[in-house]
Amino acid sequence: MTLPQSMSDQARKVLAPVAEVLMDTPTYLEVPDFQRVAIIGDYASGVLYLSYVAYGVYRALTIREKYMRLAYQRFPLTTSQYLRDIEGEPFKPEHSVQPVFTSPPKEGEDPFNTKCLPENLSWVARMKDGVIYVYKDAAEADQHKPIENMPAPHYETFIDDMNFLIALIAQGPTKTYSHRRLKFLMSKFNVHEMLNEMEEMKELKLNPHRDFYNCRKVDTHIHAAACMNQKHLLRFIKKSYRVDADRVVQNIKGKDVTMKELFANLNLHPYDLTVDSLDVHAGRQTFQRFDKFNAKYNPVGASELRDLYMKTENHIDGEYFARIIKEVASDLEDARYQYAEPRLSIYGCNPNEWTKLSGWFNKHRVFSPQLKWMIQVPRIYDIFRGRNFVPHFGKMLENIFLPIFQATIEPHANPELSIFLKHVTGFDSVDDESKHSGHMFCTKSPKPEEWDIVKNPSYSYYIYYMYANITMINQLRKARGMNTFQFRPHCGEAGAVTHLLASFMTADNISHGLNLKKSPVLQYLYFLAQIPIAMSPLSNNSLFLEYAKNPVLEFLKKGLIVSLSTDDPMQFHYTKEKTHFLGADYLKEGPEGNDIRKTNVAQIRMAYRYETLCYELNLIKEGLKTD
Amino acid sequence: MTLPQSMSDQARKVLAPVAEVLMDTPTYLEVPDFQRVAIIGDYASGVLYLSYVAYGVYRALTIREKYMRLAYQRFPLTTSQYLRDIEGEPFKPEHSVQPVFTSPPKEGEDPFNTKCLPENLSWVARMKDGVIYVYKDAAEADQHKPIENMPAPHYETFIDDMNFLIALIAQGPTKTYSHRRLKFLMSKFNVHEMLNEMEEMKELKLNPHRDFYNCRKVDTHIHAAACMNQKHLLRFIKKSYRVDADRVVQNIKGKDVTMKELFANLNLHPYDLTVDSLDVHAGRQTFQRFDKFNAKYNPVGASELRDLYMKTENHIDGEYFARIIKEVASDLEDARYQYAEPRLSIYGCNPNEWTKLSGWFNKHRVFSPQLKWMIQVPRIYDIFRGRNFVPHFGKMLENIFLPIFQATIEPHANPELSIFLKHVTGFDSVDDESKHSGHMFCTKSPKPEEWDIVKNPSYSYYIYYMYANITMINQLRKARGMNTFQFRPHCGEAGAVTHLLASFMTADNISHGLNLKKSPVLQYLYFLAQIPIAMSPLSNNSLFLEYAKNPVLEFLKKGLIVSLSTDDPMQFHYTKEKTHFLGADYLKEGPEGNDIRKTNVAQIRMAYRYETLCYELNLIKEGLKTD
Repeated sequence: MTLPQSMSDQARKVLAPVAEVLMDTPTYLEVPDFQRVAIIGDYASGVLYLSYVAYGVYRALTIREKYMRLAYQRFPLTTSQYLRDIEGEPFKPEHSVQPVFTSPPKEGEDPFNTKCLPENLSWVARMKDGVIYVYKDAAEADQHKPIENMPAPHYETFIDDMNFLIALIAQGPTKTYSHRRLKFLMSKFNVHEMLNEMEEMKELKLNPHRDFYNCRKVDTHIHAAACMNQKHLLRFIKKSYRVDADRVVQNIKGKDVTMKELFANLNLHPYDLTVDSLDVHAGRQTFQRFDKFNAKYNPVGASELRDLYMKTENHIDGEYFARIIKEVASDLEDARYQYAEPRLSIYGCNPNEWTKLSGWFNKHRVFSPQLKWMIQVPRIYDIFRGRNFVPHFGKMLENIFLPIFQATIEPHANPELSIFLKHVTGFDSVDDESKHSGHMFCTKSPKPEEWDIVKNPSYSYYIYYMYANITMINQLRKARGMNTFQFRPHCGEAGAVTHLLASFMTADNISHGLNLKKSPVLQYLYFLAQIPIAMSPLSNNSLFLEYAKNPVLEFLKKGLIVSLSTDDPMQFHYTKEKTHFLGADYLKEGPEGNDIRKTNVAQIRMAYRYETLCYELNLIKEGLKTD
Repeated sequence: MTLPQSMSDQARKVLAPVAEVLMDTPTYLEVPDFQRVAIIGDYASGVLYLSYVAYGVYRALTIREKYMRLAYQRFPLTTSQYLRDIEGEPFKPEHSVQPVFTSPPKEGEDPFNTKCLPENLSWVARMKDGVIYVYKDAAEADQHKPIENMPAPHYETFIDDMNFLIALIAQGPTKTYSHRRLKFLMSKFNVHEMLNEMEEMKELKLNPHRDFYNCRKVDTHIHAAACMNQKHLLRFIKKSYRVDADRVVQNIKGKDVTMKELFANLNLHPYDLTVDSLDVHAGRQTFQRFDKFNAKYNPVGASELRDLYMKTENHIDGEYFARIIKEVASDLEDARYQYAEPRLSIYGCNPNEWTKLSGWFNKHRVFSPQLKWMIQVPRIYDIFRGRNFVPHFGKMLENIFLPIFQATIEPHANPELSIFLKHVTGFDSVDDESKHSGHMFCTKSPKPEEWDIVKNPSYSYYIYYMYANITMINQLRKARGMNTFQFRPHCGEAGAVTHLLASFMTADNISHGLNLKKSPVLQYLYFLAQIPIAMSPLSNNSLFLEYAKNPVLEFLKKGLIVSLSTDDPMQFHYTKEKTHFLGADYLKEGPEGNDIRKTNVAQIRMAYRYETLCYELNLIKEGLKTD
């Protein structure tokens, strides 16, 4: 049994499923002594077909590992080590991959400087069966001979893998096993906390110059169009009217409309506006009504005001929206330890969207060291197709992804987009998950270019093609020394648990994950694979689940990697409640990778988490040896 | 049946317990139409001994009414009207009393000006059987001939009334009835909300220049020593050290100690302090541990720092504490619509406490238009007696109350105290309610002057004597044209439900009230008597009840008068979450007394609340007519 290098011999003993009662405890570097929870006796007993269960879990983990590696997304080293151990293979650290991020600009460096962009290449990008490939030139593209070492996910294998997982999460013994392990993890944490809370607190108190307020926090799930709170928006509207009442802000059928006229047409005067009449706040009337919630994006119910204040494309080139975002960023800069990743939309309606969005970003210099950008793609092909904006689903995918390939191949031909992409961390897939498509994603599914009906494809279908294209662009960008993109969809906020299965295969991390409540197997797999979940209990409270029933604390106790995020401050927050604790994210795993001076997380807690994960992985390994 | 003047004939019909289905609805002035919940059929059926139950509830309400009137505390007009109606007596508005508050100073008026204090009198105040009476002169005092028209509560009657209520809350049929009515009130509200939420929201949206942010909010329950948040305290400590390191802040056995030396003695340097090491934040370790919670008042666990920063009496005359409070007040002034009533302690250990406290108040001019002051009296006679600070409980009461009587009789002989008392709204009684005294309060209880054992009297005993003395001082102050004091104890945070019974008889309003959960009869009586309850779910969460189980929303829905308060921001809040919604407090009851332009509460909601209360009171009246 090969164990992670960071663990001592003594630590290994603790991890054996049938533990001895140890009188001496493992000695990590710089982990204070703490009381460990040891279980005596084989508590996996009672689960029938243990090796069968262990095999299923093992294979599920290898599936995720494969797709993460292909797309330069994260998979925990510790889990990989156990998987190699099970296979009897040596673990090679060089097999593990990491996403590539753009570092913050150095002192005096201009984040909009296009000079350091890599040189243009003459490669060609072209879509085939919904996935964009890169070719040396047009001739090779015609013969579909893509550049080597940039493999696409294998479609049939993906479907096979998916079907295996669908069967796995419904298997009785696997469900029983997962359920018990999760229950045990919960109890174990409660006991650990009871025994060690004073010791953990002592570590924190001894940590100088670091506390709740000044450890770094990142809001990883926030939509740009709702990143201000309602009071902020109200003040901005009033201020803009005082200064710009006579400014032309619209052009309707060739006729210029001033801000004064716009408000007059709406029968409104900003002076009389209150947050009540602004009416952007979600409440009980939006519960289980995503449609009503979406309407809350319109101040005073008027889409004209949304266009004027919360859009990047309008008569004033998104100036107000840029200013609001920069005000939010400036508040974050004042708070010093708070960061955010706002989402901006790309719809896939036409290939110009990227040009316009990156034009807005560069024109208004919407840059802040506190912000990274996420691109959200709404799953509303059905609406675009219904209005004949696109001929088929493939065209939508092409509109979304082809411009990025082109900017990556020829940065100097697309300087504004290339600059913007440097500050983008990834892609989100968004919409109401409780809507059903009726379509099953399988080997018989039409290819995107053949998908020309008005009906929307299923969640899994969307997710697969988003993932496949992100995989391809990441391989290209990695080869070019550029930053890569993570796939971070909204997932498990509502709808079928198969959404969480699709993300298990494809997503670096997800937002929401509420429905892990409904599948013990997936919940356990999300734990073993340590998939980050950005949760937003206040958002859920207005849309899908009462605050008191939110599983965020339960997930945290069990050891799932959860963080808190705001989602839509405009709709859900009365105050400037911006950001919260975020789990640490360091390359080394376990207590070795934790720098309490930065994270303010106790070494004891890190050791507990690490040992607990190892223990569970070891159980799988031992389980495979039984009949 | 005499109904409140504000209700039309049509409204009366709605209130009959066996309602007709009405096609037309009552027409209040300025209440928009809304859908009413009418119940057809006698839903009090199934309760045995209905008239017996109705009699008990009726008598309970008259008991409270009597004690409120005696002490110039509040009792709802509407409920009084129904009580007179049941008795066949005419309702006389002049019978109702109101507390007297000091108005905020006018533009340019000095709140510390002693010139307008009333003239000195030659009256004499003296304690007898634990209650202070006022006499014309010493001779009359010797004969115990108090001044007329200042009646004390009658001790034996009070005990009788209390025993009646103790029996009532345990009566099966009354419990069943109350339980059903409360359940019904909850369902009724849910239906009302479902039917009318859009209409109510419409009212709010049409209300110009008034919304959640700019309607007035008062934090009615906040302790001065914890009114700053932990971050604020930390900053203040660091700042004071930068400026005052060499200042003498202590004198130990004749030796001056500078701030630098004080911190050195504690082995601390403020530069290294974080909120973790400050350690004033309550957490799970304080749950059900009021003792541990009290220790959290000591920064870094050091009582020296509490003395220096959070006390009015110390070597620097409480200068830092005054400055911290003034910084909190200045934040409230900036927020414009937020007010607070911080609590300062009087212990009753010696008669000088008032002189010192009011000296601090005047010296540092701790006045803000955003603040009113509450006096909290800890129930720790046992500790003082144990250390021989007081000979008996009567002396503690005398130390607490006699100086106020004297300042009220001779304001110019006690100018600083007289000024301070103008800004005091009332008295709080505080301590860990989960402690038991073992003593039963009854006719055989020793009088306070005879209570010389070390054991603490019971909660009810404390409450009675606080109430009796507040009653006497209020009658005196009312006669002198001065402001009166409300009795507003901590009650029902933990411990026996009889605490809530004692407060039902004596308190204008209470803090906490959690344990109303445990007694349906008391809960229903608190509803019928509309007793205000300041609730602090975040405080409860760290001490007595998990946030998710807090009944605040349930109480609100049932129609109990609840408000949100912070309790101890230092221990419970990470952010500047200061104050919240507060129920409106106007003299006229029902929609007539609601000015939506100020309160931002919909008229529909007011009408619903008013009609619902009338309906319940009417049920009692009708119930009395049955066998």
